[in-house]
Amino acid sequence: MNKNDVNLDAVFIGPKSENKDVFKENLLKMFDDHMEWRKNFHPEDDTVIKLDEFDKESYKQTNLRMREALTQLSSKLRTTMMPWHSARYLGHMCSETLMPALLAQFATTLYNGNDVTYEVGPGTAELEEEVGQDFCRLMGFDPEIGWGHIASDDTTANLEAVWYMRNMKSFPLAIKEVCPEFVEGKSEWELLNMSEKEVLDIFDKVPEKLDEIKAHSVTHKCEMLPKLGKVIVPQTKHYSWLKAIDIFGIGLENLVEIPVDDTFRMDVDKLKETMDDLIAKKIPIMGVVSVVGTTEEGAVDRVDKVAELKKQYAEQGINFHYHIDSAYGGYGRAMILDEYDQVIPFEKLQEKYLQHGIFKNPNLNWPCREVYEGFKAMCEADTVTCGPHKMGYVPYQAGGFAMKDKRLRNAISYFASYVFQKDAKVPDLLGAFILEGSKAGSAASAVWVAHKTLPLNITGYGRLIGASIEGGQNLYSKIVATKQYEIDGTVVEIHPLVKLEFNMVEYVLNIKGNTNLVKMNALNYAVYKKLSYFTEPYANDLILSHTLFDYSDYGNSPLDLIERCGMSKDEWDKVHTVTLLRSCVCNPFLNKPDVFKYYAEQFDKAIVKRLKEVFIEQPEFKN
Amino acid sequence: MNKNDVNLDAVFIGPKSENKDVFKENLLKMFDDHMEWRKNFHPEDDTVIKLDEFDKESYKQTNLRMREALTQLSSKLRTTMMPWHSARYLGHMCSETLMPALLAQFATTLYNGNDVTYEVGPGTAELEEEVGQDFCRLMGFDPEIGWGHIASDDTTANLEAVWYMRNMKSFPLAIKEVCPEFVEGKSEWELLNMSEKEVLDIFDKVPEKLDEIKAHSVTHKCEMLPKLGKVIVPQTKHYSWLKAIDIFGIGLENLVEIPVDDTFRMDVDKLKETMDDLIAKKIPIMGVVSVVGTTEEGAVDRVDKVAELKKQYAEQGINFHYHIDSAYGGYGRAMILDEYDQVIPFEKLQEKYLQHGIFKNPNLNWPCREVYEGFKAMCEADTVTCGPHKMGYVPYQAGGFAMKDKRLRNAISYFASYVFQKDAKVPDLLGAFILEGSKAGSAASAVWVAHKTLPLNITGYGRLIGASIEGGQNLYSKIVATKQYEIDGTVVEIHPLVKLEFNMVEYVLNIKGNTNLVKMNALNYAVYKKLSYFTEPYANDLILSHTLFDYSDYGNSPLDLIERCGMSKDEWDKVHTVTLLRSCVCNPFLNKPDVFKYYAEQFDKAIVKRLKEVFIEQPEFKN
Repeated sequence: MNKNDVNLDAVFIGPKSENKDVFKENLLKMFDDHMEWRKNFHPEDDTVIKLDEFDKESYKQTNLRMREALTQLSSKLRTTMMPWHSARYLGHMCSETLMPALLAQFATTLYNGNDVTYEVGPGTAELEEEVGQDFCRLMGFDPEIGWGHIASDDTTANLEAVWYMRNMKSFPLAIKEVCPEFVEGKSEWELLNMSEKEVLDIFDKVPEKLDEIKAHSVTHKCEMLPKLGKVIVPQTKHYSWLKAIDIFGIGLENLVEIPVDDTFRMDVDKLKETMDDLIAKKIPIMGVVSVVGTTEEGAVDRVDKVAELKKQYAEQGINFHYHIDSAYGGYGRAMILDEYDQVIPFEKLQEKYLQHGIFKNPNLNWPCREVYEGFKAMCEADTVTCGPHKMGYVPYQAGGFAMKDKRLRNAISYFASYVFQKDAKVPDLLGAFILEGSKAGSAASAVWVAHKTLPLNITGYGRLIGASIEGGQNLYSKIVATKQYEIDGTVVEIHPLVKLEFNMVEYVLNIKGNTNLVKMNALNYAVYKKLSYFTEPYANDLILSHTLFDYSDYGNSPLDLIERCGMSKDEWDKVHTVTLLRSCVCNPFLNKPDVFKYYAEQFDKAIVKRLKEVFIEQPEFKN
Repeated sequence: MNKNDVNLDAVFIGPKSENKDVFKENLLKMFDDHMEWRKNFHPEDDTVIKLDEFDKESYKQTNLRMREALTQLSSKLRTTMMPWHSARYLGHMCSETLMPALLAQFATTLYNGNDVTYEVGPGTAELEEEVGQDFCRLMGFDPEIGWGHIASDDTTANLEAVWYMRNMKSFPLAIKEVCPEFVEGKSEWELLNMSEKEVLDIFDKVPEKLDEIKAHSVTHKCEMLPKLGKVIVPQTKHYSWLKAIDIFGIGLENLVEIPVDDTFRMDVDKLKETMDDLIAKKIPIMGVVSVVGTTEEGAVDRVDKVAELKKQYAEQGINFHYHIDSAYGGYGRAMILDEYDQVIPFEKLQEKYLQHGIFKNPNLNWPCREVYEGFKAMCEADTVTCGPHKMGYVPYQAGGFAMKDKRLRNAISYFASYVFQKDAKVPDLLGAFILEGSKAGSAASAVWVAHKTLPLNITGYGRLIGASIEGGQNLYSKIVATKQYEIDGTVVEIHPLVKLEFNMVEYVLNIKGNTNLVKMNALNYAVYKKLSYFTEPYANDLILSHTLFDYSDYGNSPLDLIERCGMSKDEWDKVHTVTLLRSCVCNPFLNKPDVFKYYAEQFDKAIVKRLKEVFIEQPEFKN
């Protein structure tokens, strides 16, 4: 494998189409490859569309209609789509995507493989298998023992995790019915607390009984559901976790949310308290979910501490499925892997970063120990969601899923006679092991070529994510340094939410001296409306996103920010919600000092311009 | 709207890249549009990748690495992917895809919108909304009242249908808890048999109680599941229906499969019997599913008869959700819509087909009355799955979902503070109303441009699907006419499974006089292995798929075929499974008589060649 550090200027088209020629050359090469492949499949076969067809009126009419539709499309895209290529876009976790991924996706779409079954996408199914192994290596799973695949998106990957935890929890009860000799003497409580490894070992011993065991499990019997216990997530979970619990029939009553601390990480003490309480009540724990890179804050949960808890409970005979939702942050684990994909010790990290030029600012001290340990311990999870189409910088739609023990797949397998081939490569029917059916082989290609170009360690993705983190850090430091804007005599302060853990920067604007939280929220929302899709994107100078932190989801964790804004706890208690401006710095070029300096100026200009407008339109803000 | 008939030669690249120049010209136009759009967003912003970067060693190294990976990819694709562009591919429901769709998808991927929320894909989210209305019109739903969207694939669209039927079934019980005044005097049995319209009307009256109603529904309470009854599907359902029932916690015990008749359509008498039996036992019916275009046979269920049943039961106060899985056949409804998207009366159909040149063979008498009525009655369903990436000829991945009454969306909505905008266009958060999260805007564009170029009626998609049906009919007639091959004195008969309903042709080879079903199955499998991905695709002369019909899924419906092959019912009863060769004729050019004639010869040659090889390798077949 090539150990050279990747040059990020060579893998994006660039905000000013700087790499246009490179892209075009490769685009046409891949296109010609395909065209010649078509022609040369049985060169003796004649053309089917004859030359005289091109002169027919109906041909011309149809061709015009297609062109007209494409022209309309192009106009619509150029008018309405977000300029993610520009550092003036500092909103959602979106950026321009990798050239290698775009080119691979385009080329593969011409062949249009479908990875649902090997037969309809042999090449891309193999690439997907390799990509799955990449995910395993990234997460610290043994790729020989583990398994992974592309999911349509991260929500469906998370759904898959819930599927596993629910079905696995029910199997011991089914084993008790079908082959009680394997679980002799175990009480129902003990059955509901068996480890997944024990269950999978039993499957290995009686593979011929698997179908019968399933017929006695929750797969067949809905009345088992109330016995299977709770799913525990941090309060900062993505809203799709609510969907997931509803979808799988678990019922939202069985979702337990753990508060976060003031760094927006799941409070592990409270987690333990909750688990102890459940155990005391003999309520099983179906699964625990950690989030690596929360959607709103980019916070990295203390995976290491949860993994430690998992071990402690296992010693007491209490087991559960441990899933990590790293849809957003998963690729960040490349930051702690060396050029041989091995975890770099914390003490060596800064030296390695210096050696590989990860950060341009030698004083940038990332990650903190907590974040490092969180990433490092991801290998302790049973399943992981990771998002190539987020911090993997590949186009939609490509989510990712990986599991530590591939035998888990047996928990959810199905077959259809027309695709099941006993003598075929494995998995010949991917659709039997995943939630989705038809799935684009082009997504697998895009991720495969991206991983080949940018290895999943500090020589590749580590550099890219490092650039993004440094850009985020630059914006955070800039906001701290800026402190305030003056608009025609009115001073408007800017406060960051929290010290940066990843690349998500959140901040609020407040008129100096204002102690009214409702007013502060209204000001931030007014500015957001001007700096977002509410305003014509192509004519805008800066585009942000925003979020609301509500007491019901966040408890008092925003209180520190509220107090820094000069407001009392009483004021917070009255309102219990805060509107923030939100910039996910995915742009890969804001680590360049001169580039950042320029766009920081544009940031200030845009904020000042929009504040002025707001004050003219709504002078009451100034009073 | 343009009422001219589309010219199919103008919308595909063609098996010999005949339209390569047209494609390339438009590809580059869309590409340049994007590149200039990038540059001209704030033209005052400087480049970020500087000219001297291109000369750096690290830039060159990275560029080489990308090219190397792309070259490997191209080689892999050309070696392993299936030549769907050629009429030598007669296997799965795969074909080359539409130029307008490919070009739209490529162009849009450069902008990479995400339709999960309006904010991150404003333009494509609007296109998706339009596409959803197209689906409604295609199915005969009022697009003002109904709603539709792109799903990742047809499996997830079907999952969505199950989600609706399950949650809707539980709401009356929840209404009884929360606002009993609306269901006063209703017994539990009556509650479980309320119509969806009644429930949605109650929602309209107390929108402020919706969350509380949900909190008392199956969304929150898993213990309600055993009360909610059964889901009824035809035996010919796709295997993903098993997944769906497992996923939603309904339990496979609650899936009821209805046998099919000898045309492989759900036996409506047996359906009625089953339903009467359930009703007598006071077991509710959560939903009934019809299939329009079964995966294995292309059979079209008698939707009209099920719709009639639904009305009859409704009069008796028995209601259920009616879903149609037309992942495969849904686009076929364009065949019965005139240039104004209105249903053509059966009596006028052939005249209209003649007028629009739908079939080249004037004697082709399609559809039979049963198929026509099946398509026509699809507007009676509550929800429909339709598959743009199947008979819509757009690239993966683009499934489709439509509902008759958009108020249904309330049954499964979720919100997250960072995406919910009360003053934004609807739906500002598509992710709240669908199963998936992130979804490629490029899929919506592809379908949108395809629909613009080929209207969803006999002037557009009708012509395309007509070409495919005529190709299938040609192959079917050819097989009937061929009857047998002679290989060095051994006569091998060829028998079609059943008269064609759509574009799926199935057939078996049998050595004349052989009455051993196991041997016949082995022969067909041996030929299949030679004419499929087991053999290098680029060097193969013909590529087929295959299927197994097993008694457990199909009952005695294959018996007619078995007897035509010269075998007794006893033999069938001994083996109870038959292996068939399977050709889905999606190729859009096999309606041209000279083209079909040529490829029919290649078909015969390949079969004879492979039979010869099989007989040499396994001479026992001849004995």
